[in-house]
Order: sequence, then C-alpha cells, then structure tokens
Amino acid sequence: MSSASPVTGRLQEYGREIEGFLGSCLRTGTIPESLVQAMEYSLLAGGKRLRPVLCLTWAELAGVSRERVMPFACAIECIHTYSLIHDDLPAMDDDDLRRGRPSCHKRFDEATAILAGDGLLTEAFTLMTRARVAPDLLLPAIREMAVAAGPRGMVGGQVLDMAYTAKPETTLEELRAMHGMKTGALIRASCTCGAILAGAGEDFTARAAAYGEAVGLAFQVVDDILDIEGDEQTLGKPVGSDQGQGKTTYPGLIGIQASRDLARDCVRRAAETLEPFSGSHARFLLGLAEYVVKRGN
Amino acid sequence: MSSASPVTGRLQEYGREIEGFLGSCLRTGTIPESLVQAMEYSLLAGGKRLRPVLCLTWAELAGVSRERVMPFACAIECIHTYSLIHDDLPAMDDDDLRRGRPSCHKRFDEATAILAGDGLLTEAFTLMTRARVAPDLLLPAIREMAVAAGPRGMVGGQVLDMAYTAKPETTLEELRAMHGMKTGALIRASCTCGAILAGAGEDFTARAAAYGEAVGLAFQVVDDILDIEGDEQTLGKPVGSDQGQGKTTYPGLIGIQASRDLARDCVRRAAETLEPFSGSHARFLLGLAEYVVKRGN
Repeated sequence: MSSASPVTGRLQEYGREIEGFLGSCLRTGTIPESLVQAMEYSLLAGGKRLRPVLCLTWAELAGVSRERVMPFACAIECIHTYSLIHDDLPAMDDDDLRRGRPSCHKRFDEATAILAGDGLLTEAFTLMTRARVAPDLLLPAIREMAVAAGPRGMVGGQVLDMAYTAKPETTLEELRAMHGMKTGALIRASCTCGAILAGAGEDFTARAAAYGEAVGLAFQVVDDILDIEGDEQTLGKPVGSDQGQGKTTYPGLIGIQASRDLARDCVRRAAETLEPFSGSHARFLLGLAEYVVKRGN
Repeated sequence: MSSASPVTGRLQEYGREIEGFLGSCLRTGTIPESLVQAMEYSLLAGGKRLRPVLCLTWAELAGVSRERVMPFACAIECIHTYSLIHDDLPAMDDDDLRRGRPSCHKRFDEATAILAGDGLLTEAFTLMTRARVAPDLLLPAIREMAVAAGPRGMVGGQVLDMAYTAKPETTLEELRAMHGMKTGALIRASCTCGAILAGAGEDFTARAAAYGEAVGLAFQVVDDILDIEGDEQTLGKPVGSDQGQGKTTYPGLIGIQASRDLARDCVRRAAETLEPFSGSHARFLLGLAEYVVKRGN
C-alpha cells in the first residue's frame, strides 16, 4: 500500500458517486434559484471529498453498504463547504480565492454567501435524516455530527483561531486544541459516524475516532507545510497566506522538519488503529492516511 | 377566552421554564467563553418565546409531557435567534438595534456575530437529539425542522425578501409566499413538530400545520402593522424601518384596514382548526392566536 495510485483511483470512484449525489440534492423542492446557484457554486467546486469518503469507507468496513450512508456522507461535505464559505467572508479570513476561483462572496455578494452557508449547514441535517439506517443508529450519528460541527467543535475552533491570530504567542498545546476543534472534530466525526451508522460496537468506534484524530492532525500539519512550500497553481490559492495573516502554524512553532516528522507519526498511529482489520477497505483507509501526508493540495 | 390575561400568565410560566433551559444549555462542554457570551447575549435577550411555547403546547395537547419535548422546543428558539443575528448583519438588513439593545454584531463584532449564529443553528440540532421521545418519532421531527429552517424554508425566504426589497413591485402572492417561507415555515413546524414528537396521527398533525400557518400569517401581518403604528419604546426598535428599507408590506399593498381584517381572519381559521379539541391546552392555543394579533410588540 505504499503506492498512491490505487488510492487515487478509488478516491475518484467514490468522488464520482459523491458528485452525482451532491449535484442532484439541491434540485428537489422549492429553493430559490439564486440560492441554489450560490450553494452549488461552492458545493460543486471540486475538492478531495475526504470527509464523505472517510464516512463511507468506515461504514463499509463496519459492514453497511455505502448507498445507505451516502446522504449522511454528503451532508458532511455540505457542512465542510458552509464552513469554507463563512471562513472566507470579509469579516472573517477575508479570502478572495478558493480552489482557484473567486470565493462565494466575491462571485455573488456577502449576503448571498452568508445565506448560502446557512442554507448548506441546515440542508446537511435534512440530508442526514435521509440515510437509510435504523432511527436508533441515525440519531446518535446526527448528535455526534452536530456536536463536532457546532460551538464545542468546528465553530468554537474558528473562534479560537481568530483569537489566536490576534495573540502574539500561541503555544503548541493551544494550537493543537484549536485545530482539534476547527478541523479535527469534523474529520474525526466523519469516521465515527460511519461506524455508528453501521451499528459498530464501542471498540470499533473508538478505533474510528483514533484514526480520524490522527488523520485530522496530519491533514492540518500538511496544510501548514503546503502554505509555505506548496505550489500556488496546485493549491489554487497564494502560498504564505498564514504568515501574512499572522497565524501560528506547526512549521512556525516547531520547524519544517519536526512538522514533517509529526505528520509521519500520525500516519503510523493511523496504521496502528487499523491493525485488527484486513481487506480492501482497511487497505484503502491506510492509503488515505498516507495520501493526506503526500498530497500537493 | 377573550381576556388576554390567562394567556399572559401561562406564557410567563412557560417562559420561565424555557429561560431556565436556555440559560443552562450552553454551559456544558467546552465552548470558548467569548462564543458563549455572544450566543447568550442574543439568546437570553428576552422575547416572547412564541415558537417553543407553540411546540410545547401542541405536544401537550397530543398527550406528551412538556419536560420530554423541552430540549426540542428550545432548539427552535436557538434557530429563531440565529436567524435574527444573521438578518441584522451589515450585509443583510444592517440593523443596529434588536429588542432595544445593540444587535449582536454591534455589541461584539461581525465575525463573532456570524459565528454566534452558526453556533446557535448547529447547537439547535444537538438539542433536538436530546428530546426524550422515541427515535422513530424524533427523526421525522428533526427532518421537518431542518426543512422549515433551511433553503426550502426560512433561509430561502430571506433570499426572496432581499430580492423583493430591491424590486419595485412585489405582488400580494409573492409577499405571502416569501413570508410563508421566511417566518411562516418555522412557526408552522413549531406546531407540527410538537404533534409529531407526541406520535400524533395525520389528521391531528394537519390541524397543527393549519393552525401554525394561520398564526404565522397573522404574526407577520401584525408585525407589518406595528412597524407603522407601533410604539418605539414597546417595540424596542424604530418604527417605519420597513418603509425606510423599501420593503413591501401588507399595509403597503392592501392598506391598514384590510390588513387588520386579514389578521382577524387568521384567528378565525386558527379557531376552526382547534374545534375538535377541548381543555386548557386548546383554550391556551386559541388565546395565543388572539394574543399574536393584539400584541404591542
């Protein structure tokens, strides 16, 4: 599983199914057309679809088909997309570019971007309820996702990120706690919700959580490295934006080499959590952890 | 049931229980303190708590205790509060005052207000999952609430409201459809979710829906009238703000007298839907419909 290419192939296969679902889910009911356009502009702008892929694969590893979980998995992508739209707003990170294109508020306007984000976040919960699993499994998964995305998770992490950006000295402990909430919680919950939706037991779900935490941390550390060393064309955004905004990063705190070591250590921990499992789903999850560290965008 | 005072007394009784729940629900877990403060600033700013009261009362009318439904009912107030915070933002309605105090982005800042809204919306879904009813009743109620609050409901209605504000001639039909989404959907769902959570049948839930539609329309018509004739002190905001923003209103389209008649007709329709029911809950719901039309703020 050292070559990335089987991972890339399977990512593309899952990606096609996810794109298909995302491309149709806003086309039912009576959403005002201008709102659908703004929501789809950001939702269908590409991206790795890492979170839904993690949810689908952990569900499959736990023995449930991905068709049943697809609406839930795609809901996580809606939550991720809403967070990007709101983070880019002038009052927040004030980013004009996202994935090589004008960010939502630049392409439309600020009010539309705020509402597109609100719409995607709320629609995510409608989608979650459409997963075809028993209500007593679906309900705890919805709770897990709401906690991860809310003030105790992603939203709280963004508040801390802004507070730490204004603060001269952020410690490694604070940085890890902040990222654990801002990006880690949603990636972790993508894995655990896959397990919960499949009715997996406590030990299995704890492994999904530990894997998700390792991958989430690796993802953030690599993001910080790419912001320094990445290729602007591949990234779709200017490098050096963290530094420009005065953000504390892993390379800034512990240096590039220690950051690379930290990311590799995360892959090792992810591999450990997968030890009891075999088969193509487990191999894919291992490959995904490696892919997160080796990626160029 | 023509005197408003038993209604006011019961509203206060429910209000105390709702305030108690709302005042404690953000104090668990690890929400950053600055975020809790911004969320509570808006959530605990008073208000009639009409939506949770409707949810609790319809649940009680259908035979379930309000303790079981309280987390769900308070979740609706979180959704309502988030919508007020985001609607007040400079990019949206740009309102500096809300309930006689600086709006959230004036008291804190824009970024904090956006995130306080995001946090309240997401926390609402965490709270909903805490209702103590069977998962197969809770799940359809969560779906109903997500649809009502999302792009097919409240968020879509706000998009239409902004589009119509910029448009010289809005028809009565457009105005009703817009308000049906922007304010009507959440009030309607407050009633239907109470019924659904109690396991009520189709006819009962349809009556809750019809009652909610009538009360929602009455609420909006009276809001428009108060914006012209209300008392600034009682309202906690300047009168004439709709006209100042170029918004189409019921009095603007059909005149004050026809608007008053429309509101009274709504109360009649609400009373009709309650005809099969007797007892204190049904009387309170009738009184609430009358209260909505007679209120001064």
